[in-house]
Formats: sequence, C-alpha cells, structure tokens
Amino acid sequence: MKETKFAICLLLACSVVAPAQQIETAQPANRQHRLMPAPSAIHFLSGRLKIDASFTVATDGHTDARLEAGIYRASRRLEGRTGFEFMRAPASDSQTATLLIQCKGPGSPVPSIREDESYSLDVSEKQAALKAATVIGAIRGLETFLQLLEGDPQGYFIPSVSIQDKPRFPWRGLLIDVGRHFEPMEVLKRNLDGMAAVKLNVLHWHLTEDQGFRIESKRYPKLHQIGSDGLFYTQDQAREIIAYARDRGIRVLPEFDMPGHATSWLVGYPEFGSAPGPFKIERKNGIFDPAFDPTREELYKFLEGFFTEMAQLFPDEYLHIGGDENEGHQWDKNERIQAFMKANGIKDNHALQAYFNKRVSKILQKLGKKMIGWDEILHPDLPKDTVIHSWRGPASLAEAARKGYDGILSSGFYIDLMYPASQHYKVDPVAADSTLSESELAHILGGEATMWGEWVSPETIDSRIWPRTAAIAERLWSARNVTDVNDMYRRLDAVSLQLEELGLTHEKNVDMLLRRLTRTNDIGPLKTLASVVEPVKEYHRSQAHPATMLAPLTRLIDAATPDSRGAREFSGLVDGLLSDAPLFRQNRDRIKILLAQWRDVRPALEVTIHQSPILFEAERLPRDLADIGDAGLEALSYVAADVSPPMEWRTAKLAMLEQASKPKAEVEFAIIDPVRRLVILAAEISELKNIPVSQWKQRVLTLAAEKNR
Amino acid sequence: MKETKFAICLLLACSVVAPAQQIETAQPANRQHRLMPAPSAIHFLSGRLKIDASFTVATDGHTDARLEAGIYRASRRLEGRTGFEFMRAPASDSQTATLLIQCKGPGSPVPSIREDESYSLDVSEKQAALKAATVIGAIRGLETFLQLLEGDPQGYFIPSVSIQDKPRFPWRGLLIDVGRHFEPMEVLKRNLDGMAAVKLNVLHWHLTEDQGFRIESKRYPKLHQIGSDGLFYTQDQAREIIAYARDRGIRVLPEFDMPGHATSWLVGYPEFGSAPGPFKIERKNGIFDPAFDPTREELYKFLEGFFTEMAQLFPDEYLHIGGDENEGHQWDKNERIQAFMKANGIKDNHALQAYFNKRVSKILQKLGKKMIGWDEILHPDLPKDTVIHSWRGPASLAEAARKGYDGILSSGFYIDLMYPASQHYKVDPVAADSTLSESELAHILGGEATMWGEWVSPETIDSRIWPRTAAIAERLWSARNVTDVNDMYRRLDAVSLQLEELGLTHEKNVDMLLRRLTRTNDIGPLKTLASVVEPVKEYHRSQAHPATMLAPLTRLIDAATPDSRGAREFSGLVDGLLSDAPLFRQNRDRIKILLAQWRDVRPALEVTIHQSPILFEAERLPRDLADIGDAGLEALSYVAADVSPPMEWRTAKLAMLEQASKPKAEVEFAIIDPVRRLVILAAEISELKNIPVSQWKQRVLTLAAEKNR
Repeated sequence: MKETKFAICLLLACSVVAPAQQIETAQPANRQHRLMPAPSAIHFLSGRLKIDASFTVATDGHTDARLEAGIYRASRRLEGRTGFEFMRAPASDSQTATLLIQCKGPGSPVPSIREDESYSLDVSEKQAALKAATVIGAIRGLETFLQLLEGDPQGYFIPSVSIQDKPRFPWRGLLIDVGRHFEPMEVLKRNLDGMAAVKLNVLHWHLTEDQGFRIESKRYPKLHQIGSDGLFYTQDQAREIIAYARDRGIRVLPEFDMPGHATSWLVGYPEFGSAPGPFKIERKNGIFDPAFDPTREELYKFLEGFFTEMAQLFPDEYLHIGGDENEGHQWDKNERIQAFMKANGIKDNHALQAYFNKRVSKILQKLGKKMIGWDEILHPDLPKDTVIHSWRGPASLAEAARKGYDGILSSGFYIDLMYPASQHYKVDPVAADSTLSESELAHILGGEATMWGEWVSPETIDSRIWPRTAAIAERLWSARNVTDVNDMYRRLDAVSLQLEELGLTHEKNVDMLLRRLTRTNDIGPLKTLASVVEPVKEYHRSQAHPATMLAPLTRLIDAATPDSRGAREFSGLVDGLLSDAPLFRQNRDRIKILLAQWRDVRPALEVTIHQSPILFEAERLPRDLADIGDAGLEALSYVAADVSPPMEWRTAKLAMLEQASKPKAEVEFAIIDPVRRLVILAAEISELKNIPVSQWKQRVLTLAAEKNR
Repeated sequence: MKETKFAICLLLACSVVAPAQQIETAQPANRQHRLMPAPSAIHFLSGRLKIDASFTVATDGHTDARLEAGIYRASRRLEGRTGFEFMRAPASDSQTATLLIQCKGPGSPVPSIREDESYSLDVSEKQAALKAATVIGAIRGLETFLQLLEGDPQGYFIPSVSIQDKPRFPWRGLLIDVGRHFEPMEVLKRNLDGMAAVKLNVLHWHLTEDQGFRIESKRYPKLHQIGSDGLFYTQDQAREIIAYARDRGIRVLPEFDMPGHATSWLVGYPEFGSAPGPFKIERKNGIFDPAFDPTREELYKFLEGFFTEMAQLFPDEYLHIGGDENEGHQWDKNERIQAFMKANGIKDNHALQAYFNKRVSKILQKLGKKMIGWDEILHPDLPKDTVIHSWRGPASLAEAARKGYDGILSSGFYIDLMYPASQHYKVDPVAADSTLSESELAHILGGEATMWGEWVSPETIDSRIWPRTAAIAERLWSARNVTDVNDMYRRLDAVSLQLEELGLTHEKNVDMLLRRLTRTNDIGPLKTLASVVEPVKEYHRSQAHPATMLAPLTRLIDAATPDSRGAREFSGLVDGLLSDAPLFRQNRDRIKILLAQWRDVRPALEVTIHQSPILFEAERLPRDLADIGDAGLEALSYVAADVSPPMEWRTAKLAMLEQASKPKAEVEFAIIDPVRRLVILAAEISELKNIPVSQWKQRVLTLAAEKNR
C-alpha cells in the first residue's frame, strides 16, 4: 500500500498546480466527466469497473456508524438506478470488494469548518479505491462515485479514473429561510440530501423572521407558541435535523435575526420592543420597524437566557445573529432610547446597533460561540473571530479580511432573485483583481446560496433551490478557473436528474402544478408556455399582485422555474445556426419546429386559460407567444430566401418583442433574446455580406444586444 | 330555520327511496356531477355561487378546534386551486358568509363506527349551507364542497345544488401494510388526507409482519429494536398519526398479526416461538413457518402485557389480530405442542388456533377491546362482538352474519393485485342475491381496500393506492346501484387530480421514475410504452425475477401503473369506432395517430433501452408495441378499403397479439384487447354484412373475446 500512497501524494501535489482542465486533456478519447462540483484533479484511464448484482463495499481502516450509514445510502441509490439487488453483507475480502473504502479516522464529532474533506478515488477494472482522512471525506467521495455511474449496451459501469479532490473553500452553505414560510421536516431533510450530493456543508437555518418564530424555546415558550401560527420545530425535531445533517457531513448554523426582523419575538414578549406594542405576526413582505430596545438591561438577560438554551441545542461553533435591515425607525421615535444615546455618547442608530452587537457578542463569547452576522455588524469593537456574512459583495469581504475578520459571501448567490445559474456561476468570493495577501485570503471562508422565503412553499421551494444551487456549490468547491458555462449546464442537467432520487421535487412538481392550474391531465398547451417563461426577477413579484405570506403559491409564476431549460436549449440552437453562417442550416429544422409550436399553440392555450380563472392573468401570453413564433419563422423565411425584409418589418418585430418581453402574470419570456437574434439576422442579411463571414455571428449578437436599433 | 330543517327532512326521507341516478334526471341541462363518492341524493338547481377573493366561512352552532382545522385546510385547498388569497377571519355575519356551517355537536371524541357522518349541502347563489349532526359529518361535507368547484370564463363557482348524503356502510377502510415495506410518516399522512378526500374512515395499520415489527414497545423493546431494521414508529409518532386521522374523522385500527406472520416478533423473543430459533427478520415474500407456541402460558402473559400497552396507545375500540395464513408446520414438528394437543383433546391445527384465539380474545375483552381477525378466526366460541374480516368473499361474510358476527369485506378489494378499478368497483359486500334478513344485513359493516406491502416503496405506494381506491370508497359509501363504470372513470379522473393537491405522488412519480430509468429528461419514447403497459397481476411479480423485500422498486414495472389510462382511452376510442358501423369513421384519425405512434416509436425506444441496462429486460417490448401498432393500422386499412384480408393475415395477427400479451419485464400490454377487436373487425368485414348493422359491434366484441378463433 505504501507505493499507492506515495503515488497519491504526488498526484495531490500535482493537483495544486494543475487545475482540472489541464489534466483532463490527458483523458483517453476526450472523455468528458459529468461530475459536479468538478474535482481538483481527474484523470481518466482506459477500462471500466463493471457494476452488477455482485457489487460489494468493504472498509479497510476506520469505520463507524456514520460511514456505514453513508455506505448504505449510497448502495441504495446505486440499486435504485441499476435495478440490482446487492448483497448487503460486507465483502469477506477487501481485495475482492467492488468498492474499498480506506478511511483514516472519524473526523470531528461535530462537523467543523476545519474538517478535512479531501478524498481520492482510484477506479480500475478490478476495484474502486476510495481513500480519505475522515469519514466526511469518504462521504464526499461516495457522492463522486455515484456521479460517475454510466450505462451502455454492455451494462452499468464506472469508468477507470483517478481523482484527487478537496474543496477550495471550507464554508459552502445554503440558507433556508423558514421564517417567512415554514418548511416541514421532510423538506429540510431532502434538501440536506441534495446539499450532500453536491458537497455543500452548511445548512444556514434562518429560524426567526418578522413573519414567524420557528424554534421551540422551553425557557421563553411564548416565542414559538404565539409567534409561529403553530408552525415551528420542536427541540427534538431540531436535534433530528442536526443529526441528519451531521450524518451527511453538514453543519447546522442557526440564525436568530436581531435587533430588526424581530416582530415575531415581540408578539410574545412586547416588553423587549422599542415601541409599546402590542405586536402581531407580520403577514406582509418587506422591511418592518419592530426592533429590540438595546437600552434595556432586561433584554440582555433575556437574550442570555435564550442563547444559553440555543447554544446547548445547536452544537455548531458559530451562531448567526442576522443584524440586517434594521432601519431604526422605532429607535428614532422612542424618547427613552434617544435619551440613552445622548447620555452614552452614541451618535446614531448604527452606533446603537454596534453597542447592541457588542453586548450580544459578549454573551456568545461566554457561551463559547463565535458570532456571525450580515455586513452591517462589522465594527472594530467586535472580537476578531466574528464572521462577516456579505450581501454587499467581494469588496466588503476583502475589506473585512484586511481588518482581520473572516467572511463568507452571499451577494450574487441570492437564488430567490430567480436569475439563471450562469449568473451565479460567474460570482466569486474573491475578486479577480484581488490584492489580498495570502494570509488575508485565508479569511475568505466561502459562501452561501440564500433561499429567502417570501415566495416559496413546500411545493415550490425545491425548484427554486435546485438545480441552480449545484452551480454555486461548484463555485465554492472547485478551482476558480472552472468557469465554462456550457460545460456547467451540461453537467447540471445530469446532476438535476440525480437529485430527484433524493426525493427533491424540482422537476416533478412542475407538471403537478400545471395539472392543478388546468384541473386536467391535458397540460400540453400550458406546458409549452410554461417551459419558455420564467418568474419575474429581483423583487418584482407581488408588486403587480399584492399578496401576503398567506397567499397561495400555486399560480403560473409558481409553476414556472427560473433558468428555463427550454429557453436555454432554444438559445443554444439559435447560436448554432448563427455559427453556421452563411448557410444557416444548422439546427434550422429543430428551430422551426419550436417556433411553429409556439405560433400554433395559441388557440388551445387560450381555451385552457379561459377554462381556468386562475390563469386569466395570463390571457395575453398565448398571443405574445404566437407573435414570437411567427417573427422567428418569418425571419427564417427571409434568411432562407436570401431576401431582406422591409425596414418596417424589422421595426415592427422589434417593437413586438419589446412588448412581449414585459412581464405579464408575473412571468417573462426567456426566449426573447434568441428570437431577436433571428430578426436581426434577417434584417441585416444584406449588410452582413459586407463583412467577413467569420464575423457574422458576433455582429448579429452585438446588434441584437442593442435591441431596438 | 325550522322550515329549512323540515324541507331537509323531507329530502332525506326521499333519498332513501330515490337513488342518486333517479334524482339526477331532474338536473337542469343534464348537468353531470363530478363527485366521488356519489352522494345519496343530489339535485342541481339553476344558478351558481361565485367563488372569489371575498370567500368567507362562518359557523353557526357547534364549533371546535377540529372543525376549525378542517375549515382551514379546505380553505387552503380552495385558495391553492383558485389562486385567491381569502380573508381568513370568520365572517362577521353568518348571513353574508359564502359558506355557512351549521353543526350540531362534536361527535364522539374518538372516531367511532357509530359516528353520524351524514350532512346536507344546499348551495344557492347567495350562500352554501352545510348542515351536519357532527363535526365529522361537516368534514365529509367540506370534501363534497371542494369537489363541486368548477371554473369557466366567468370565474370559479359552485353550481347551485341540494345534496343530502350519508354512507351506506359505517366501516370504509384502507389497509396499509407497513410490515413488509416500512412507510415514513409523510406517506401515511398524505394517504390519510387522500382517504378523507374520498370519505374513507378507517386506516387499518398493518404493523407487524414476518419482515418487520413496526411499532415501539416500551415494555418489550426488543420487538422494535431488533425486529425492524430500525424502521419503526415511535409511540409519539403513532399518537401523531392517530391525532392526524382523528382530525379527519378517520379511525386508526392497529393490527398485530398472530399466531403466524410472526417472525419479526421472534427475532427478539424466540422463547415464544414454536421452533427453537434463533429467528432472523424475513427478507423474502411468501408464507413462512414461524408461529407463536400457543401451549405456553408465558406467551399469554407476554401478550397481555403487550396488548395492555397497545390498548393504551390506540384508542379505537377494535384491535386486529390478523390470524391469517398460519399453516402450522412448526406446530406439527413440535413434540411438546403435539403432546399438549393430545392431552387437551385439540384435534388439529385449526382447533389449536381457535384455542389461541379464545385466549387472546379473553385478554382483549379484559382490556375493553373488540377483536377483529381474518376469516380463519371464525369459531363459535368467540364472543359475538368479534368481527370477521373476509378475504374469502361476501358468502363468508353472510355466513358469519347468520351466526351473529359482524364482518367487513376485503376480498375483491386487494389493490396490490393490480387489477383495474372497474373490477373492484363491481364487488359488493352484500351479494346481489343475498337472502340475509334486515337484521343480518346490519352485521355487514363495510370493507377495506388492502395495500399489501410486498412491492411498494414510499415512491410507488401512492400509485398503487390511488386513484383506484377512490372507486372502492364509492362502493362503500354510495348506493349499491351506483354502478356505471364509464361514469365512475369520468369522475375518477377528476378526483385523481384533486388528490394530488394533498401531496400524493401517484401521478407525478411516474415521470420521475422514467427519468431515473433513462437517466435523461428525454423520456418521450419510454413514456409512450409505459402509458400502455401495466404491472403483472395477481402474485406473478418476482416469479420471473426473484427478489427480496430489500430489492429496489425502481424498474419499469414500478413506473407502470395499474389500470392504464392510456389503454382505457384507446379502448374507448375503438369501441366508439365499432359503434359507428358501417362507416367506422368515429375516432378513426385519433386511433390511427396512436397506432402510428406505437409503430414508429420502436427505434427511439430501442436506443433508450440500450443505453439503460435496467431496461434490458424490456428489450422485446418495442418490437411488440410496433407489431401491435402495425396490426391495428393494417386492420384499419382493410376496413377503409372495404377489403377482406387473407385468412393467413388474421391468423398471423392474432398469434402475434397472443405472443405480445405475454408479460415481459413483468409488465403486460393493456391494449391487446382493443387491437384484437380491430383485427377481428377487418377479418370479418365481409361476414358482418350478413347481419344487421346494429349487431356488428357486439359480434366483433364476441369474436374478439374468443381470441384465437
């Protein structure tokens, strides 16, 4: 075994200098991998390890209940995919096991930011050897093993490969906001499974919000009893989630947002508010005034009692106190608070919040917890082990790092804003032009995708998290130069399907919601529409359609998914066509089929909408979609005939596209850009002949980007 | 209000003599209802009650937490379907509320077989008035109210209607076997919701099997600790299920199967077995030897201790002891038992089991529980409040009734056998030619659908239960003359979609499993196949493909659903075509499209199968499907050309269909019969001209039923 270890050391050393792409060039037959996140180093060899009913797993070295459970889960998933029933007994002889796991030790009893998550996986025709320093490393490697499974007419197999892998950042999280909309236990569990599948390691559990207080407090029971509508996690349930996460090598970071976002606390304990109350659970969406009164000593006693209870419940070394979006309106209006500020030389609300944070920080220090909060909390008085959670961007992280604070990034990873994965994928916790020193860089711990809960229900949350979060997981695990967007999407499509086996509903609930919308099984026409629209982005939802947190999330916008796969595929087809200048034959038939489908679906779609009042808001969309299809088809006709359309045609079509691009029913077409390219192509077909063919595509893209020119 | 009550009394009296169908003839414009189960009496009026954002509910009379929770759930579902956000505060004035609920009292604190579940629902343009004697009656009425929702270009509405309703049988159950395959809490909960939606009122919780002991025993912890693979319900979870069921007016009947089916008990307590042991959790499917030793006094002490614990946990007045399929092989071989039998004049194993049952019955009597068990337990020594659960059929129930025993039927309601809903729908707990007196008839309490757990996982169980169980629910609730199969299917399709809003996965997991089988989103070809095949019926599964309870349930057979909707629709199209003799134009184009799709999908389907080794077992099916499609198309060509095919054609096609009808990959085509009709039609087209046109269809059906003639 010593030789093998030595070889691995060499390869590991190698992987530091040679990023994945370079090593991949050495692959036999240019084999592409479908791994996500991409490993540090991967080297395909010739040959394959057959996977059949005789599949066995052996451990050689450390093993424990967590590793055995991980092996069991991985085996079940492999059985589910392949249909084989494996012998579940450990292989008698580690040399003959299909998968041999050599794990050096258990890792820390509570998953920690210092965990060694590295592993190596060497697959030959005889055996797959997974080596790791800790059980968590082995669990990461098992996920890679599962992603490697392939099938062809010869059967299922794992290609021979050598992988060395470890994360770029130690903090790779997903925030789930259960305050605004409560999420049942099974939603959290299946998402923890999804996180583990893409090697995320922190569940940031946003437990309190103006709209709900979601964790049982035995010490201050009015918090959950009257601040939650009965929708909270018992402490037993919290322990269940923590154990479930631990089994998968995931930390659970609890957040108790303060001093703002505190309405639900004050429903039961109005005496800690900065206004007289009474307070009611907030139903709306937005930023609200209720805030703790930082001038009351009783508040700190209360918080010490509360945090003492929570520090015992949550084993993670960090505790998140939020700290965001406190505008201090109640402080401004409270004479007592104003007098306190004057008496203590506290010059503004920011300083008052800093005073509050310092007091909270002392409590947490006493309890052995490190404090983490949003950008706003950054203040020189805070201890250096405080962590800054940035919604502002890499620059604010860099600034904190220079001051010696650790930080994590969420700016750019706000998945609730409904942007495509490609946009999140571009974001890096470290700016490309970063001037941070190596020791400063070490303060950038990673990042978190944030699933803010304004507009998600248990039925829709998975489709807002997945598969896009897998792209963010790759950003945080893989080398910074893994940035090929097309390749990311190719792998994302594969991983998205694998995520379904964990019970995630991001794919299957789409049709389910369409059936509910139409009250029939005949969802074809609506599906044609839904597959090319996306929910409105940023914070535009509910501006046209006021709604509270109690509103049903069952409209077209809820069935529509961010990052429309249909639109992305269409866009790719059009780009292929443009690349085929001057023939423009590539993909043309497929493009025409899609365009004709959009044009022709209008009557059936209108019938569907007229029979379903919940869809009345979408009544304009069939016509828009037909117009879009029409414009594309006309453009292709001009191109095929090599005839320039009249100027008015171009103007009319661009105006139509501009109109169609405006959100209706709070969804927007994701196919406007590629159709605009077709229109521009047709309109410019004569002009293009004046420039070299190789520049045609770029010229069209540029003109289309200028829109209404 | 008195006048209204009087009118209702009249209508109720009326409904006893006038079954639903007769009253329906009085509907305006022949309006069809989509209710399932069909109510005792329904009378549509002209007009509609508009459902919009101003929807409110008021209660006038008794209300309590259970009713309020029921109203809340119903309102949420209505919001989910309509997209409106209702004001959730109770209407200030009961006269202006959209829905007014007048409930006389709470009903029994524990749902009981004597519960009054009747209700009336009168919907006018101003208000819907729901009246019930108990909260459970009101909850039943709320489900009817939800099923009445319609939508059209004017918006959502409930048609004006007058409904009086009450169940035909008081015991309407669903058995879920969690012994062979464990089902998580959320599976039970969503199925309880489904049960409530179709007015079932007993969850028969089959908690113990050779393959697993699924309930925590604090008194005998080795039962669940080493008899369950860790897959059991804690007593807290059992209480949670009982409360969840109670909220929906559903009894929870626990079953502890004995003296056979007892392997998992004996793993922890081998001393109660009839053979020396040790015992291991059974992995296979079948009938096994391990059985309690009824000659040991310690056994009855153990059972008394166990039942004392369970009697406290489960509040239902009944307790099921199974009693089925004990073949007594271990008794035969045990000298001690043989000696005991001789000494006590016990002549055979049946008598020994009767002795055991009598002892168990005494224990249950002491604990205030009535005993229920399968046919085998029937014995004159048992107390008259024992209930017989029949897997043998209505005759055995009638026999028990004559002896004064209550009984429920499951024979004919075995949904695990994969028969279509139409078959279960024909079964009635009381034989059509029953000679039972009225007082004897009162002993027939109802029935239960049985979801035996050999081949169901949490991913597939819903599609094995739903929607077919809704048809059984109708059989047990509605008048015995509600028997129109086509009308049942029309309503079943509607109710199936509504069941999805409760989280049931019977629709959405089909595509999910197809995606897993193919490892792609491109499931079109496989879906074409899966939509016209059904799982093999009866107990044929796993005979060709040996598998244990640990095998993955992710094969084509698991994605296929019983009672193929695609095949049923095709069959209906063909029957329409036959009715259109001698033109045979009706549905012809649609039939040809489907046949051509089956013929043409072969290459793509073969590619799919070759890329997915789990589908290799289905490699013959694309060819079969293409042959089937071809045969149908050829038949239609002959018919259209009015040309008789050669005799060899008929012989060849019928032989091909016979071959294609044989199960492969443990699925079978459900489209053989209608295609055979097309073949016969073509083959007989000249002969048919010798008989009156009106007889053509029947003639084809008869000849086709004779198959290879």
